[in-house]
Amino acid sequence: MLADIRSPRDLKDLTPAQLVLLGMEIRSFLVESVSRTGGHLGPNLGVVELTLALHRVFDSPHDRILWDTGHQAYVHKLLTGRQDFSLLRKRGGLSGYPSRAESEHDVIENSHASTALSYADGLARAVRLRGVTDRVVVAVVGDGALTGGMAWEALNNLAAAPDLPVIIVLNDNGRSYTPTVGGLAGHLAALRAGGGYADAPPGEGEPAGRVPATGAPGCGTQYGTSGSSGSSGSSADTVTPRGWFGDLGLAYIGPVDGHDIAATEAALRAARELGRPVVVHCVTRKGRGYRHAEEDPRDRFHGIGVIDAETGRPVATASPRTWTSVFAEEMVQVGAGRPDVVALTAAMLHPAGLDRFADAYPDRVIDVGIAEQHAATSAAGLAAGGLHPVVAIYATFLNRAFDQVLMDVALHRAGVTFVLDRAGVTGDDGPSHNGMWDMSILQVVPGLRLAAPRDATRLREQLWEAVAVRDAPTVLRFPKGPAEADVTAVDRIGGLDVLARSAPAEVRRDLLLVSVGAMAGRCVQVADRLTAHGVGVTVVDPRWVKPIDEALPALAAEHALVVTVEDGARVGGVGAALAQTLHDAGVTVPCHNLGVPAEFLPVAGRSELMEEIGLSTGALEREILRLLARRTGAGRAVPAAGRWLSGRFVNPIPPGPPARTAGTRKER
Amino acid sequence: MLADIRSPRDLKDLTPAQLVLLGMEIRSFLVESVSRTGGHLGPNLGVVELTLALHRVFDSPHDRILWDTGHQAYVHKLLTGRQDFSLLRKRGGLSGYPSRAESEHDVIENSHASTALSYADGLARAVRLRGVTDRVVVAVVGDGALTGGMAWEALNNLAAAPDLPVIIVLNDNGRSYTPTVGGLAGHLAALRAGGGYADAPPGEGEPAGRVPATGAPGCGTQYGTSGSSGSSGSSADTVTPRGWFGDLGLAYIGPVDGHDIAATEAALRAARELGRPVVVHCVTRKGRGYRHAEEDPRDRFHGIGVIDAETGRPVATASPRTWTSVFAEEMVQVGAGRPDVVALTAAMLHPAGLDRFADAYPDRVIDVGIAEQHAATSAAGLAAGGLHPVVAIYATFLNRAFDQVLMDVALHRAGVTFVLDRAGVTGDDGPSHNGMWDMSILQVVPGLRLAAPRDATRLREQLWEAVAVRDAPTVLRFPKGPAEADVTAVDRIGGLDVLARSAPAEVRRDLLLVSVGAMAGRCVQVADRLTAHGVGVTVVDPRWVKPIDEALPALAAEHALVVTVEDGARVGGVGAALAQTLHDAGVTVPCHNLGVPAEFLPVAGRSELMEEIGLSTGALEREILRLLARRTGAGRAVPAAGRWLSGRFVNPIPPGPPARTAGTRKER
Repeated sequence: MLADIRSPRDLKDLTPAQLVLLGMEIRSFLVESVSRTGGHLGPNLGVVELTLALHRVFDSPHDRILWDTGHQAYVHKLLTGRQDFSLLRKRGGLSGYPSRAESEHDVIENSHASTALSYADGLARAVRLRGVTDRVVVAVVGDGALTGGMAWEALNNLAAAPDLPVIIVLNDNGRSYTPTVGGLAGHLAALRAGGGYADAPPGEGEPAGRVPATGAPGCGTQYGTSGSSGSSGSSADTVTPRGWFGDLGLAYIGPVDGHDIAATEAALRAARELGRPVVVHCVTRKGRGYRHAEEDPRDRFHGIGVIDAETGRPVATASPRTWTSVFAEEMVQVGAGRPDVVALTAAMLHPAGLDRFADAYPDRVIDVGIAEQHAATSAAGLAAGGLHPVVAIYATFLNRAFDQVLMDVALHRAGVTFVLDRAGVTGDDGPSHNGMWDMSILQVVPGLRLAAPRDATRLREQLWEAVAVRDAPTVLRFPKGPAEADVTAVDRIGGLDVLARSAPAEVRRDLLLVSVGAMAGRCVQVADRLTAHGVGVTVVDPRWVKPIDEALPALAAEHALVVTVEDGARVGGVGAALAQTLHDAGVTVPCHNLGVPAEFLPVAGRSELMEEIGLSTGALEREILRLLARRTGAGRAVPAAGRWLSGRFVNPIPPGPPARTAGTRKER
Repeated sequence: MLADIRSPRDLKDLTPAQLVLLGMEIRSFLVESVSRTGGHLGPNLGVVELTLALHRVFDSPHDRILWDTGHQAYVHKLLTGRQDFSLLRKRGGLSGYPSRAESEHDVIENSHASTALSYADGLARAVRLRGVTDRVVVAVVGDGALTGGMAWEALNNLAAAPDLPVIIVLNDNGRSYTPTVGGLAGHLAALRAGGGYADAPPGEGEPAGRVPATGAPGCGTQYGTSGSSGSSGSSADTVTPRGWFGDLGLAYIGPVDGHDIAATEAALRAARELGRPVVVHCVTRKGRGYRHAEEDPRDRFHGIGVIDAETGRPVATASPRTWTSVFAEEMVQVGAGRPDVVALTAAMLHPAGLDRFADAYPDRVIDVGIAEQHAATSAAGLAAGGLHPVVAIYATFLNRAFDQVLMDVALHRAGVTFVLDRAGVTGDDGPSHNGMWDMSILQVVPGLRLAAPRDATRLREQLWEAVAVRDAPTVLRFPKGPAEADVTAVDRIGGLDVLARSAPAEVRRDLLLVSVGAMAGRCVQVADRLTAHGVGVTVVDPRWVKPIDEALPALAAEHALVVTVEDGARVGGVGAALAQTLHDAGVTVPCHNLGVPAEFLPVAGRSELMEEIGLSTGALEREILRLLARRTGAGRAVPAAGRWLSGRFVNPIPPGPPARTAGTRKER
């Protein structure tokens, strides 16, 4: 039946029995398909009926349906003409999130949580200001996303704008990855437990007939049929408490069983009739209908790799040692050695590698919800109270707390360590999950020290070094996936680890390769190949990349060319900071920066993208050879800097035309 | 009497009558002193009694008293040994905000709103984890600050942590600058109007005796004496609605008249006894006791310049034309010419220059509260709905919305214009008001176009250019204070305005001075002086500083030295981006960046700070002469780049020793 659904219109005439069957078919499709490709399984199994109801009640794309966070839009994709999931989250395949390039039914494609209500607010205000009368804006938001501050900002605004046609579908499964934290979660639990208060508070001058007269259906009962709970707030007395949403001024309908299509549709239709901001509280179960997901104690198969659909078990037998797992292990040691260390997570205990720490020291781990701003500032408070907090989050989500890192942590000289997982190019989660901005925006934070460990050993070492800093923020950042093989230093100069040096070191100093973090392995490989070409190369890893190590300018001055390699934005990154530092120090050796171009990257695997943006070993080698050739070409007009600086420069590359573009892309 | 108060201890033995007199004395002091220096008058007049009560009930600094936003801490300063207000907000004088350097009674000094609750959460968790039993943490937060998302994140966390000794003093004056917006403000108004529900919801296993048994005192009645309102929620039924705070799980006491010292003290003592997170809802009046402030229709004398205390009128007769007023005027024109333009403010309609627009087009202006994140993303929604939003905020507050600008606006290619007032060095408001980070962090945002208008004419022009961009974010930024005098272009090359060129242009090309925004006037002055020294100078203003204008590399190549001058962070700023662009283009002319050092600036006037950081006309001239001398000095070992690039280089400066430090400070 699913194959016959080409657009949401094809749902309109289905019978209730057909809808139930279609739901079963969709669920089977999801399990079979996502188990083969990996992806977000649990969240999508939870919204099968809710999505069917949404597309039957609303007229997308005329009505706008927004998916907060976006990883729960698979069913929406299936119902809007996108049923080839074979390349899900791969190049050329479907995005794992809504994508405006894929469909006119998709509106927002940001995968950061808690944004949809603000977007809906703006869209609805545009609808109103432009005099459109028949369009509604529907935002589907999880209970977890309501823990995020910007969702509150939007709710507070919507509650005071009774003329906006916004329907907030609260998809309450009680979880982010793990159970949702905070006071509001407690209130939702109380509502789910049967004490709901379905009503709409009295609108300003709104005809009474538009307010649903029915009371609070318990969870699982059909909308509009059960009796009132007795605590309805549809009195005109504005001071009578009527529940959290009602007190705020929002209409509220619920709770409704989000797996009961008819009940959900009835609630949505009632909400649509209201013509004002209304919360439809839908209770769903993450992983619904797939036993292995429903029973999973950890995260209900929130996001999975390739699994055996029969058993629910990962297909890969030996899981490689990831950066995350190395951090997770070492945090347990840090917890033992440093009783003042506490850990904070923003609703991602397991993904951020704090699960083992939490097992060992349950009193010393704090899950703040999807609330990165609060995490940073609460950490500053913990530091002011004499503890050392470690805030473990994905690099891309630190952007949410930039102001807090700058003001609440750095200005206050608070000893807080931020551990940024998934830094650099992540790939398959699409443009908004790449953690490629951190090393640029953090450059401006006074006093902040930034480490990019190159391998598991350095991650362990530098975590200890970070938590030893008591008067400034420290940041550790590392990529997604398997930890790089260890790269042993052959020497140490100041704070720099020398990773490779073409012998004899005293003779040839063509190139200083400054490797940032996980780029070390490939930089050493490149150096080996360049050495074979006759290039004299030194490879160093500064370990701490901010501030710039004091030994770097003098070392740079001994080479003819400096090339920096980082898995982060070229613009304003570590390389750019080094170039500025060299210039300030009067070192005129050219400093070329290789890194991620200033553009949003497409969905593709990390290694594909690294090749494409010039950060694979092969691409690095080609680019550096070209840069060396350019220097030599220029050398016909002016002596290479290396010659007069070190007096030992030997031209390794035959002269050729200077390359002017240096492999960088134009900003778009 | 005030002069005898050396520390909060001196308050403990005062009689009620003495306290009233002391309050009057403090109020007189504030009016007399702040009218002479300027500062935040209205907010401090509103918290005289509240601050007295706080320092009598709590034992600072053992107990920690946190002032959210911080501009209402003048009374706190007076009571904690700081009574010399003669140099308020000036170098060597008291900061306008709490300052840990001034007093052990000050804890947080960030002047961005909505942070104190998160800080309190962290401090209280540290208290608990370290086994301290007798310390409480008190956070004074305004009703306006609760519109900010991070305040919600903290409330949601505190509500689920019943063992934390946090007292949230909600200083409810119904205003930010202007009346507070949003649904919660409506609820607070209802509570103020007499429908309060003073109680504490049942704690988990908490002795009943610790819950205050009294009902809801109306505003202005003494705490604990009036009857119950009948809607108390101290029943064990967790589903019974009990008001917004209660539903969340927070204890609540109030409303209490914050100008009644005895009532406020009683409420605070009751809150202290609870030993759990509790909101004490204090109703105060901004500007209280000073008629001109209380009756001010705009902002109750929120922040003032020097005034005549008798009349309440500004002392300065002719107010200069400010950047803000130019923007305000032009927005009215834009509103007329572009009916699709709407304006957003984050609780700062007048300070951000949207008041005239609001008068002209009341339906097209949106005040979102202190909610920069929502402002940015709601603007993206407005753009998706076919309108063009102009978001007018202070530059320093854009840091709060960095992720939203990057993801919700730029990734979605939304045509949104951000107008950043108070960009660059602002000075007297201290380190957290300087808007000196914007041009660095925005460099990484793909597609974003950034303009720094050099004068009022360019501000008007570029505002129109910005709102004409329909598929990318645009940013305009300008400083605080009087608009710079117009600087007329003498030529145009590509998108560059040529502001000065030493004649004959064809002969001498020593220096290309790239001026960013409001630096234009002083750059032209410097060029004049350098020309008198015999230096061949070209001064250009790129107008749009991101992306780098395509004409710049070729122009730079015609000079021996490029110097960039910007009123923003050197690190990763416009100059750094230009240096990288020049390098990428194969232009080897050195590019030196002058800008704000990567450190937090002290409290001082803008012109003092500009001199100190090397951005005054005199400092710029000295530094550039030094750089030219350095080039020449280096020229003894290597030909100056200008010689081989343009073939027209004439050495203007006698050789001298190369300066290696270039006037830049070391990061600290």
